[in-house]
Amino acid sequence: MKALVYHGPGKKSWDDVADPVILDGTDAIVRVEATTICGTDLHILKGDVPAVTDGRILGHEAVGTVVSVGDGVRRVAVGDRVLVSCITSCGTCQYCRDGHAGQCLGGGGWILGHKIDGTQAELVRVPFADLSTYPIPAGVSDEAVLMLADILPTGYEVGVLNGHVRPGDVVAVVGAGPIGLSAIIGSRLYSPTTVIAIDLADSRLEAAKSFGADVTVNNARENPVEVVMALTGGFGADVAIEAVGTPATFELATRLIRPGGHVANIGVHGSPATLHLEDLWIRNVTITTGLVDASSTPTLLRLIGSGQLDAARLVTHHFALDEMERAYDVFGDAANSGALKVMISAG
Amino acid sequence: MKALVYHGPGKKSWDDVADPVILDGTDAIVRVEATTICGTDLHILKGDVPAVTDGRILGHEAVGTVVSVGDGVRRVAVGDRVLVSCITSCGTCQYCRDGHAGQCLGGGGWILGHKIDGTQAELVRVPFADLSTYPIPAGVSDEAVLMLADILPTGYEVGVLNGHVRPGDVVAVVGAGPIGLSAIIGSRLYSPTTVIAIDLADSRLEAAKSFGADVTVNNARENPVEVVMALTGGFGADVAIEAVGTPATFELATRLIRPGGHVANIGVHGSPATLHLEDLWIRNVTITTGLVDASSTPTLLRLIGSGQLDAARLVTHHFALDEMERAYDVFGDAANSGALKVMISAG
Amino acid sequence: MKALVYHGPGKKSWDDVADPVILDGTDAIVRVEATTICGTDLHILKGDVPAVTDGRILGHEAVGTVVSVGDGVRRVAVGDRVLVSCITSCGTCQYCRDGHAGQCLGGGGWILGHKIDGTQAELVRVPFADLSTYPIPAGVSDEAVLMLADILPTGYEVGVLNGHVRPGDVVAVVGAGPIGLSAIIGSRLYSPTTVIAIDLADSRLEAAKSFGADVTVNNARENPVEVVMALTGGFGADVAIEAVGTPATFELATRLIRPGGHVANIGVHGSPATLHLEDLWIRNVTITTGLVDASSTPTLLRLIGSGQLDAARLVTHHFALDEMERAYDVFGDAANSGALKVMISAG
Amino acid sequence: MKALVYHGPGKKSWDDVADPVILDGTDAIVRVEATTICGTDLHILKGDVPAVTDGRILGHEAVGTVVSVGDGVRRVAVGDRVLVSCITSCGTCQYCRDGHAGQCLGGGGWILGHKIDGTQAELVRVPFADLSTYPIPAGVSDEAVLMLADILPTGYEVGVLNGHVRPGDVVAVVGAGPIGLSAIIGSRLYSPTTVIAIDLADSRLEAAKSFGADVTVNNARENPVEVVMALTGGFGADVAIEAVGTPATFELATRLIRPGGHVANIGVHGSPATLHLEDLWIRNVTITTGLVDASSTPTLLRLIGSGQLDAARLVTHHFALDEMERAYDVFGDAANSGALKVMISAG
Repeated sequence: MKALVYHGPGKKSWDDVADPVILDGTDAIVRVEATTICGTDLHILKGDVPAVTDGRILGHEAVGTVVSVGDGVRRVAVGDRVLVSCITSCGTCQYCRDGHAGQCLGGGGWILGHKIDGTQAELVRVPFADLSTYPIPAGVSDEAVLMLADILPTGYEVGVLNGHVRPGDVVAVVGAGPIGLSAIIGSRLYSPTTVIAIDLADSRLEAAKSFGADVTVNNARENPVEVVMALTGGFGADVAIEAVGTPATFELATRLIRPGGHVANIGVHGSPATLHLEDLWIRNVTITTGLVDASSTPTLLRLIGSGQLDAARLVTHHFALDEMERAYDVFGDAANSGALKVMISAG
Repeated sequence: MKALVYHGPGKKSWDDVADPVILDGTDAIVRVEATTICGTDLHILKGDVPAVTDGRILGHEAVGTVVSVGDGVRRVAVGDRVLVSCITSCGTCQYCRDGHAGQCLGGGGWILGHKIDGTQAELVRVPFADLSTYPIPAGVSDEAVLMLADILPTGYEVGVLNGHVRPGDVVAVVGAGPIGLSAIIGSRLYSPTTVIAIDLADSRLEAAKSFGADVTVNNARENPVEVVMALTGGFGADVAIEAVGTPATFELATRLIRPGGHVANIGVHGSPATLHLEDLWIRNVTITTGLVDASSTPTLLRLIGSGQLDAARLVTHHFALDEMERAYDVFGDAANSGALKVMISAG
Repeated sequence: MKALVYHGPGKKSWDDVADPVILDGTDAIVRVEATTICGTDLHILKGDVPAVTDGRILGHEAVGTVVSVGDGVRRVAVGDRVLVSCITSCGTCQYCRDGHAGQCLGGGGWILGHKIDGTQAELVRVPFADLSTYPIPAGVSDEAVLMLADILPTGYEVGVLNGHVRPGDVVAVVGAGPIGLSAIIGSRLYSPTTVIAIDLADSRLEAAKSFGADVTVNNARENPVEVVMALTGGFGADVAIEAVGTPATFELATRLIRPGGHVANIGVHGSPATLHLEDLWIRNVTITTGLVDASSTPTLLRLIGSGQLDAARLVTHHFALDEMERAYDVFGDAANSGALKVMISAG
Repeated sequence: MKALVYHGPGKKSWDDVADPVILDGTDAIVRVEATTICGTDLHILKGDVPAVTDGRILGHEAVGTVVSVGDGVRRVAVGDRVLVSCITSCGTCQYCRDGHAGQCLGGGGWILGHKIDGTQAELVRVPFADLSTYPIPAGVSDEAVLMLADILPTGYEVGVLNGHVRPGDVVAVVGAGPIGLSAIIGSRLYSPTTVIAIDLADSRLEAAKSFGADVTVNNARENPVEVVMALTGGFGADVAIEAVGTPATFELATRLIRPGGHVANIGVHGSPATLHLEDLWIRNVTITTGLVDASSTPTLLRLIGSGQLDAARLVTHHFALDEMERAYDVFGDAANSGALKVMISAG
């Protein structure tokens, strides 16, 4: 089959590789009908994720059809159309039993396109298929469902749920890329009064507005602390969601928050940040970090089915599977292409 | 009356001052029968708390008897023996209504010995007396109750409750001074399996053992990360409580924690710490800070009454009121004196 | 002044009575600009609430302007336009400090139009004015704000919050009168997938649809258990909210619920219900009861200000203050008049 | 092998039966070293549980050694000593993924000695062995571990956790049989101030005292409502735990509770109870029911290992495996034998 293969920092190609086979009784093989590219894939290509080695097929998001299953698979059958989640779950370790599959100790967690071959291919082997795939209800678009493979549950669980967004809240989202937009979409499910999106790019702030931000702040031109304090009578936001992954944006998030508020970090960080405990020690703040567990996937799938989650619109560009490298170019050049998420579809 | 008066950094004296008077209908005047000194008072004397100005009577902890009340006071009467809490509460601002009097916007919070005159005196004016004092049940010692003015609710609320200590947990407490010991005492109410105390002083670690630590680590000689990892199969503690207030101890707390664990900061910090988001972003950690709200005071008072809180033993030294300056010397030289908390009693 | 006075079961009149005066330093006198009638007032008139005695002015909901305040009032001033909540709060008892003013032990709770004179009058004395009134933001209609005096926080706190409505849930609301409609409006803040309204009157079910119900069931014609089970694959609703107050409707709510679900009782009950523990003991259900605490009032006021709560539309009929008795007739004959809530306004 | 076989209401015998065999890849066969009898087994023998049919081997609690495993079993190996829990878990249905294996939809839940053959035998087949057995740490007695198969997690999860027992609480436990005693033992982990045990038998009340009850009430002679109200200043208990399973004891639990309190039902009920909503509607009570999920088993096992759970003392009588019928006689005649739990051990 064809697949997008990583060949060390800066190098990837659309290669002929062997088809995946069932290695374990709980595996399924899925024919990929749609996949996408994540910001994390760009990090991998830069060499930032050393666990990914030469020869690895990238990608951890897909919609497809099951073509074979191991003899221990019970809930997924050949022919089923499924969502392949970025998180696989062994189902038996203490973290999985507590609902935290992102921290799986039994061989799951984020492994696709990372520790094992991924979804940017014609076929993918999915371990623990019963717990790592979800049947797709009739009547929902592939675009919408594909956003549930990673980005929407990440924004919802790590941003909205960890941040405890509640009706009437003021929510500040630092970063209006795809993850920040997902956090905005997810926040809306809890009826905050004001969602404030902060970014350096006007185009992203326009997108933020269209996905539900009430106020936008371009922090190339405006001071977001001043804007948030002005909107909240000097208190600060109830919740600040960090969706970039730099020390500066994290520190900004901690300055936007009211006493008693929550800072929910979603961003993938490569270096330490400064935590201003000399100010924060007395302010009753809660700071959370986390990898998605995908525990919200069934709920979000239901909300897509009911039309309550405006997810499909995150897909701005479409490609055929054999245009994979071009899809990378467009997604990697988001500043010019305006790409949010790209969908790469088979035939 | 006589009172311990701050006269700028490094200067204090036991002065004759005017008796306090009722300034507001919700005030009470309390004759101090027992007071104590807090680590924060030492910070003030170093000049670290600029809000405290020349002429301020220090102290925010007391047991005493009400000698007069304003006409808006309803639940406290002249002659009542009361605990004076370090936190006063206006009772009407949104923070007080939400149970967070430490963040009071209506003139309360930590004000005694800070923004108004405090308890290291023969008499003290207590604002919002209905909400800021607690009647003392018969049969409990002043030593025990005095520990409820600040140190026990601080360890319990900001350490144990914020850290979500649960039965069966492994709890690491960084710092075994009075606040760390309070966190250990409070943790025991939730039946953790293992409490690990970490400090540089063997005498404090001995005290920690006597208050309920199962394991002690002198981090002048041992690596606490290695000890905690060895005790937890390489996972880390469920809860790490920071009870010192330095960048190094905070960073240590964040390295002791398992994925999904809680870091509860109690320490008063004067400078920023480094937050290793490059490790922590993916580990589902929760970090909390906070000032005590004293919302647990009625519960802790009940537990003292029932003999379930071993609080009186925190008092290692006793002084008469006119030995206040000597009490400061002994408390300030804890390394040599072995002082945990000192009690200064009237006649 | 003029006021609607209760004169024993079945008797009320629009009488000349003495103006209220400040009795306590924390009182305010409010000139009533708009009030309304609650189902509870009809219960009182039937004689169901013996605590209400001959001579009592009825009513526990109002919007008005402060005309005088006691000397202990700090946050409310003469001339302020305020919402008068059905719940007054002493602010100092343990229930008030825990956020449960509905259970106030210090002379508050539901007292207006019950234990003291109420709001269906030209003037009303409001005890504990700082905690029992809320300033009205500019730009919101009296109709909308008046719904916050009782009915919306009741539906929200006792129905939606106690029932733990979450995104993606199926919520069954038994009873589509004003309280049931409030629960539907409040549920929508949490983005349930499906809200099912159940009632005997088609007109109320039509109203339920207009306020956000997705499915309606007339249980004069249809079996609500069958409908809910068909919609949920045989599981039952995540949340069932009882908004009537009869044994039959409560028992229905307990039969609609899935294992692990919540039954939130709002209804005022006059007789016991049968609890089918022979079925429920094994099903992990949670059943809650409660009187409103009005702790959500500031949040709901913010949501009205932002246009996110569709409250004003609950007011179906308007009257002048001296048409009070006619307003009672129309409200009491809802089956024919179609009244949901009536607003009675001064000049 | 030999096994205790049910032959219809009132009939059981110690029969020769075929050894169990692996039926599914996730099964394990366990050689039973110790088992016990549950009150539920007596219910089954009375014919109260029609799902149990003639020929069924009874018992759902065991300690033993694994003698064979299916090819899908990963965490349990031949030779392992394990606890066999009363709850088996498929690990993939939504209830299992949410931590509620008691409500398993995938073929688990309470099935041993109910829908499939059980543990009162020389060998038992355990489905979903990875999720339904727990390795036994060295140094803990079989008596203690055997109590984790059902009774301790039931008292802890359905009584203590559902009832939200907290430090300083007053907890009333209605019924001091083995389940009530387990709830008392479990409550102690949360440091309530006062645990009140209520029963008709003085011998059980003596046992309650020895397991941690502070106050005992024989409701053949005393009025428990009066005792609880006298102890709580007329308020009622914070938590009432029902551990009998009759309408009268449930109704008693609801009368013991303070406004805002929790009633946690553990009892297995065969008939409806009366719920006095005419009193309770206004009192903010929470009532929970539930079957154990065994989600607390790892925690409780740790607490047994650390010596913090006084579980072994629940075993009052020991028998050999071929004395099974005599063990039933002694357990069934608890009033005279004083039996709490009996342990039946192989060779």
